[in-house]
Amino acid sequence: MTSDKKKRLVIIGGGFGGLSLAKKIDKNMWDVTVVDRHNYHSFPPLFYQVAASGLEPSNISFPFRREMLSKACRGCSFHYGEVKSIDVSRREVHTRYETLPYDALVLASGTTNNFFGMPDLQKYVLTLKSTPEAIRCRNEIIDRLERAAVCGDEHKRRQLLTFVVVGGGPAGVEIAGALGEVKRYVVKREYPSISHDDMKVVLVEGSDALLRAMGPASSADALRGLEQLCVDVRLGTTMKSYDGHVIAFSDGSSLETSAVIWTAGVVGEYIGIEGTDLKPGPGGRFAVDEYNRVNGLDDVYAIGDIALMTSDRYPRGHPQVAQVAIQMGRKLAHNLSRPENRSPFVYHDKGSMATIGRNRAVVDMGKVHLSGFVAWMTWLFVHLISLLGFRNRTIVFINWMWSYFNYSAGLRLLFRPGRYPERKYWSE
Amino acid sequence: MTSDKKKRLVIIGGGFGGLSLAKKIDKNMWDVTVVDRHNYHSFPPLFYQVAASGLEPSNISFPFRREMLSKACRGCSFHYGEVKSIDVSRREVHTRYETLPYDALVLASGTTNNFFGMPDLQKYVLTLKSTPEAIRCRNEIIDRLERAAVCGDEHKRRQLLTFVVVGGGPAGVEIAGALGEVKRYVVKREYPSISHDDMKVVLVEGSDALLRAMGPASSADALRGLEQLCVDVRLGTTMKSYDGHVIAFSDGSSLETSAVIWTAGVVGEYIGIEGTDLKPGPGGRFAVDEYNRVNGLDDVYAIGDIALMTSDRYPRGHPQVAQVAIQMGRKLAHNLSRPENRSPFVYHDKGSMATIGRNRAVVDMGKVHLSGFVAWMTWLFVHLISLLGFRNRTIVFINWMWSYFNYSAGLRLLFRPGRYPERKYWSE
Repeated sequence: MTSDKKKRLVIIGGGFGGLSLAKKIDKNMWDVTVVDRHNYHSFPPLFYQVAASGLEPSNISFPFRREMLSKACRGCSFHYGEVKSIDVSRREVHTRYETLPYDALVLASGTTNNFFGMPDLQKYVLTLKSTPEAIRCRNEIIDRLERAAVCGDEHKRRQLLTFVVVGGGPAGVEIAGALGEVKRYVVKREYPSISHDDMKVVLVEGSDALLRAMGPASSADALRGLEQLCVDVRLGTTMKSYDGHVIAFSDGSSLETSAVIWTAGVVGEYIGIEGTDLKPGPGGRFAVDEYNRVNGLDDVYAIGDIALMTSDRYPRGHPQVAQVAIQMGRKLAHNLSRPENRSPFVYHDKGSMATIGRNRAVVDMGKVHLSGFVAWMTWLFVHLISLLGFRNRTIVFINWMWSYFNYSAGLRLLFRPGRYPERKYWSE
Repeated sequence: MTSDKKKRLVIIGGGFGGLSLAKKIDKNMWDVTVVDRHNYHSFPPLFYQVAASGLEPSNISFPFRREMLSKACRGCSFHYGEVKSIDVSRREVHTRYETLPYDALVLASGTTNNFFGMPDLQKYVLTLKSTPEAIRCRNEIIDRLERAAVCGDEHKRRQLLTFVVVGGGPAGVEIAGALGEVKRYVVKREYPSISHDDMKVVLVEGSDALLRAMGPASSADALRGLEQLCVDVRLGTTMKSYDGHVIAFSDGSSLETSAVIWTAGVVGEYIGIEGTDLKPGPGGRFAVDEYNRVNGLDDVYAIGDIALMTSDRYPRGHPQVAQVAIQMGRKLAHNLSRPENRSPFVYHDKGSMATIGRNRAVVDMGKVHLSGFVAWMTWLFVHLISLLGFRNRTIVFINWMWSYFNYSAGLRLLFRPGRYPERKYWSE
């Protein structure tokens, strides 16, 4: 497949950044390989709907092998495997299964959960940074509802029905809103043995506003929306500790819960680097210049969440959102395809949005602020057209319309992890 | 919810038998509780399509709580939890989460894999007796293809691409056919780095014919169909041992493989029984009379796969198929609702069918034998109308048409079990 004239470009990560680069780069000039630990491109903005049973994981996932057959990607190849380390002196990428040589390397592996030096937390909390994590989150949420429905003990039942979301960013606001809707629409109908007052949804945010990245109007709308869904929003509050049973907050209060959803922070995915002393900067992000070149490394680039590109407008780095990753991917594709007239990256902010629940979202575009139904429709539309695959778009649309008209948040199916437990058998 | 006049009926298992009983029984007379270890009704005849990525698990699963809202089930309640044991002296069912008293108890928990005294086998083989098992089977199949695609070692790659199916019943024939189609249509297109000759599908069956439960014509058609899909069918051959790497056969031959799919036998689900010495009979099935009463126990009934009802026509018990379970459920519902004019169970055999692949199935109805496209359409139709839930039917239909016209066997998405492994993090 590799022609000798072509230079080998290896892209680590097939997310928004990596895929937009692969699509736009000149395939006559570059022999492109996309490496990913999953065999599908996923759609993080809708992970919370998977967790809330609104969508099936397959609806928001698209196989790389299918994508590689598309016109835009023809000529690219996909390699399955988690990247263990890169050796910049040998110009090699070591995956779990193979060693890939490169002429140019692009780090596009994105971020994972930041437990701020409390690694034990990941044993107890639920997270939303990957499809498997979203599936696990869904399973645990359904498990709590089902167990509460057959729980005779008042106290235990309340503990099972207490859901705490940590972090008031888009992910936290959206999952809290979705849980509020489960309480309001689903429990009453499908769990007759549960009094829906027994279900409690708490959202804690360290700062004094939700959706800090957006405007004050959006923050206020989000707060009002969540409170109308009976979500107990606690601003200026952080989580001190959680042991799987009791969560303690900075204000000294505590709650008994077996379901804490952690959306409080992200950090760049770990990649072992050999052949140099270079380490990533704050947040596990790699400092890059305006051409996305990683400072101090030759022919190594970084785009998206894992790239730390500072500018006058963004002194602490660009926002870690899909749009930045997509635009960086396209710009780098241009710069690698036409080195002679390369140009520096400039971010065009198309605005940001978040949904709070049925009929309710917030959208900020420059000076324009939308809320309520109009914002919600905008949100639906933008996310629908951004999905990969015609079938996915169709099915997600059907699902959303379906849920909209019968107030149901999808099938609540608890698919336990594949490995089934040791079972007792009748001795034959 | 429980009115005092009503008697409490507990049904263990919400499969074909348990659900048809719950639907048809007189809810003014009985207070019905369905207990299941899953929170959804599943559709075993299509597990093989989940394993082969033809359908998503959600397409063939339907939540009990949704079903309990249907007209037929109104008045029934669903309790989530695996049944640990029953105490017939106290008339109690002990689930993982609670104790349920009963006036009448119905065992409808069905069967699981029979490893014939080789319990270790379940560590190594893939199985198809539950949705989680089918999901695991799918994940491992995709994992082998993806790893083979990036495997430089010839010998290792062939081992990764050798799939062995043990058992020539419907499940074995159908998954072998599906794998044959993956080899024929999918690998060539989506895995350019794999020569599709490297993929090997072997089906071993101990007896001298496939689909023994069906007529000789069907057995012959199935054999021809699989051979056309390049499946290496070995009749009169059994598996001697498998250690996760090498599978040894009764004819002395052996193969290196990391994917063995076990469909060789079933045994009744284990239920601990207290208050009596009674044990189930052959195959872990409970001997019942023609009214489905478990011999030797009062007010305990068994229906479906786990019931062993013998008759002149079926001296070794009725076939363990959906139709028997459904008909037993309905008959028992009648007998429990109108004890005064109860009647013995008589099985009306509506025939049996299996699909071998695209355009190809076999159907036996009494003396009538269908094969090829007609049989395939019959198979599609019968399975489609048997699915629970309008949305499921719609989506499965769309998926099937889709696959039919573009020769694709669905999205091949490898969703790893929910719990994600310990990861390394950048120390902040």
